[in-house]
This record gives sequence, C-alpha cells and structure tokens, in this order.
Amino acid sequence: MLSTTPRTTLGRSKERGSTDRNNLYEVLDTGLICHLGVVVNGHPMVVPTGYGRIGETLYLHGSTGARSLRAADGGEVCVTVTHLDGVVLARSIFHHSVNYRSAIVYGRARLVTDPDERLAGLRALTERLAPGQWDYARPPSRKELAATAVLALSLDEASVKIRRGAPVDEEEDYTLPVWAGVLPLVTAWGEPQPDSLVPEGIETPVHILHRE
Amino acid sequence: MLSTTPRTTLGRSKERGSTDRNNLYEVLDTGLICHLGVVVNGHPMVVPTGYGRIGETLYLHGSTGARSLRAADGGEVCVTVTHLDGVVLARSIFHHSVNYRSAIVYGRARLVTDPDERLAGLRALTERLAPGQWDYARPPSRKELAATAVLALSLDEASVKIRRGAPVDEEEDYTLPVWAGVLPLVTAWGEPQPDSLVPEGIETPVHILHRE
Repeated sequence: MLSTTPRTTLGRSKERGSTDRNNLYEVLDTGLICHLGVVVNGHPMVVPTGYGRIGETLYLHGSTGARSLRAADGGEVCVTVTHLDGVVLARSIFHHSVNYRSAIVYGRARLVTDPDERLAGLRALTERLAPGQWDYARPPSRKELAATAVLALSLDEASVKIRRGAPVDEEEDYTLPVWAGVLPLVTAWGEPQPDSLVPEGIETPVHILHRE
Repeated sequence: MLSTTPRTTLGRSKERGSTDRNNLYEVLDTGLICHLGVVVNGHPMVVPTGYGRIGETLYLHGSTGARSLRAADGGEVCVTVTHLDGVVLARSIFHHSVNYRSAIVYGRARLVTDPDERLAGLRALTERLAPGQWDYARPPSRKELAATAVLALSLDEASVKIRRGAPVDEEEDYTLPVWAGVLPLVTAWGEPQPDSLVPEGIETPVHILHRE
C-alpha cells in the first residue's frame, strides 16, 4: 500500500488514484527522466533529470555544482515521473483529457556519502537510462565520482495516478454527431546512431540494438 | 532574447543554453504537457498538467478545487516543458547523457478573470493538446466554465536548454573498443481508437486522423 499522508491523499479525481505499490514501481521503472522540484529562495524550481530505483529508494544525481541538487540536499523535494499515453478526445471540450501514468514522491533528500551506496545508486541511475551500459562502458574514475553528487529519496511518501481508456462524457452528449475516442501516443526506440569516431570493427552491442 | 535573471542564467552546461526566443516558442509549442511546480506549506509540489501559449503568455487550467492550482494562484510557480529526444551512450559511464529540449518558465501566476481571456486561454490549451477540437467538439457551458480555473503566466523569465548530437568523451577514451552513439527516442501518434459509443456514420475527423 502507498502512504496516505495529506499531500499524497488525492484531492481530485480519486478514481484515478492507485494504492497498489506495484503500480508505483511500474511507473518508476519504465520512466527515463523525472521532474525534480525543489524550493530555492522560497520559489519552486523544476528540472528534468535522471533517476534510478533500488527497493524503496530513489536515486538522483548531478554535478556537485548544480543549483537544483544543492537545494535538494537535505531539503524537501518532489519527484514526479509522468508517462503520457494518449490524448482523450471527448464530445465536449470540457471532458478532453489525457491518458497517463504518473508517480509523485515527496520527501527529504539525503546526500549519499557511503562509497558503496554511491556506486549502487549511480549504477541504478545508469541502468534505468541505458540498461546494460554499466558493465559495458568505462567505469567512473575516482575524479569523476568526486564530481558527482548522489542523492537518495525514500519512497515512503508517494502517490500514483493512472488514467486509461475512453472519454467520459455528459450523458446528453453521447447522441451528438461528434467523433470521440483516444489518440494514442506511442514512444519507441529509433535506429541506433553510431558516433562517427567509433573504431572500425566495433558492432552495436545487442543490449542497445535490441533495447525494449 | 530570453531574460537573464539569476535563476535563468545557466549555472551548469552553459553551452546547452539558448537565448533565442524562437527556441523557447518551439519547445513550448511542440509539447503536450508541462510539469507545474508550486510551493505548498514550504514544500515543493510538481504535477503534470496541460498548457497553451498565446504570444508572451502561458495558460494553465484545472479544477477550481485542485490544490496545485490554488497554490499557484498569485504565488510563484515554475513551469517546465521537456522533450526527451534520445539517450546518449558514451564510452564512459560518466559521460552518458540524454538529448533533450527543455524550457523553464518562472513567475507569479495570475488567475484569469476576464471572460474573453479565459476563453482564449482555454482555447489555446485545448488546441495545444488536440488541434482542431475547439471548433469541433461541444463548447464549454457556463457551468463548466465556472468549474475551471485558468491561470496566466508571463514568459518574461524563461530559459531554454537543448542538447543534440553525439556523446562527448574524454580524449583518451576514443580509442577504447567501445561502441558509442545515440539511441533516439521517437514519439508518434498511433491509430485513433474510436469510443464504442460513437454513433454510426460518424467518421474520424481529418484533424485527428492526420495529426502531425
């Protein structure tokens, strides 16, 4: 079960909320980037960034100099992951909507200092964005590790919202001579584009060529 | 030119910043949803939501009861629109990245009360999500309009970041026997899925069937 603190208890569209922990994992484990919200000088700041999950912990990273990460360290953050699945075309403008799956995680971010947890967090981050690459590409050097801040965020306080399926219109609108339905949005991997400087004879690895 | 206030002056990766106003419009006018950041009780809250643009103003909407919109009304907000274009696979883990185009807009949101501007804002929102639908579907009733809050946000303070192209690796890594390149992420519209309750004889309109 997901938590039900005041801010994760859905105010609107309760029927779209899910308290199934597996839905939370599914949304997080199929996303590529999140939107990280922090408060800087009392103002909100929202930046897209990578993330990874290990069990009940989300990992974020960035340059040790990044403003957003400096604000996030020890402060309250909000991490939102959204999958947009389609546009819902209703008979009325008012009932237009989108099909989506989104997760919102609230909490206080913790700067990870333990070397093993730092590496594990970076591995989770890399494997979320590019599965198979952690063991394939050159590992981070000590200097590179020192330049990277890793933050951990517990999944204790999280909510999931999912909308699927057809439009829901006003009863009297169903007889209107208006088309209604869903226009799905499909996201897929294109053909890998090799860097022109890849040495001859190096083939595209299977984990990139056949990424799902 | 985009503004260069302290928070829109890029701290990191300056080479990815753009001060071309047309880039801002392009990112905003090709996105479908934004991530709206507000501060609620001192904590950040980030929610995905629709938006539209008219000139130098971004419009957001939502139920008059939505927490995020209540917090946004008159308060400082941050609106971020992100297009993820691909995963950048470098020779080293450290230089893995993503190709993306993102816009961040900061400002104080204004609750729109003028009826004409409210309608224009809702039209822009609808047409961003579903071009052609404003003139096709049933217009909002007075009651529906009353249930909808429309917020306006000036584009005065905005920044754009764009990363395109191949990975950039450490000089000494280019001789490694490692494949490197870009795995593009392609987003496309699928086949329209008609609602089972659409009356017989109503064809899928051209603006939905052939949406670009």
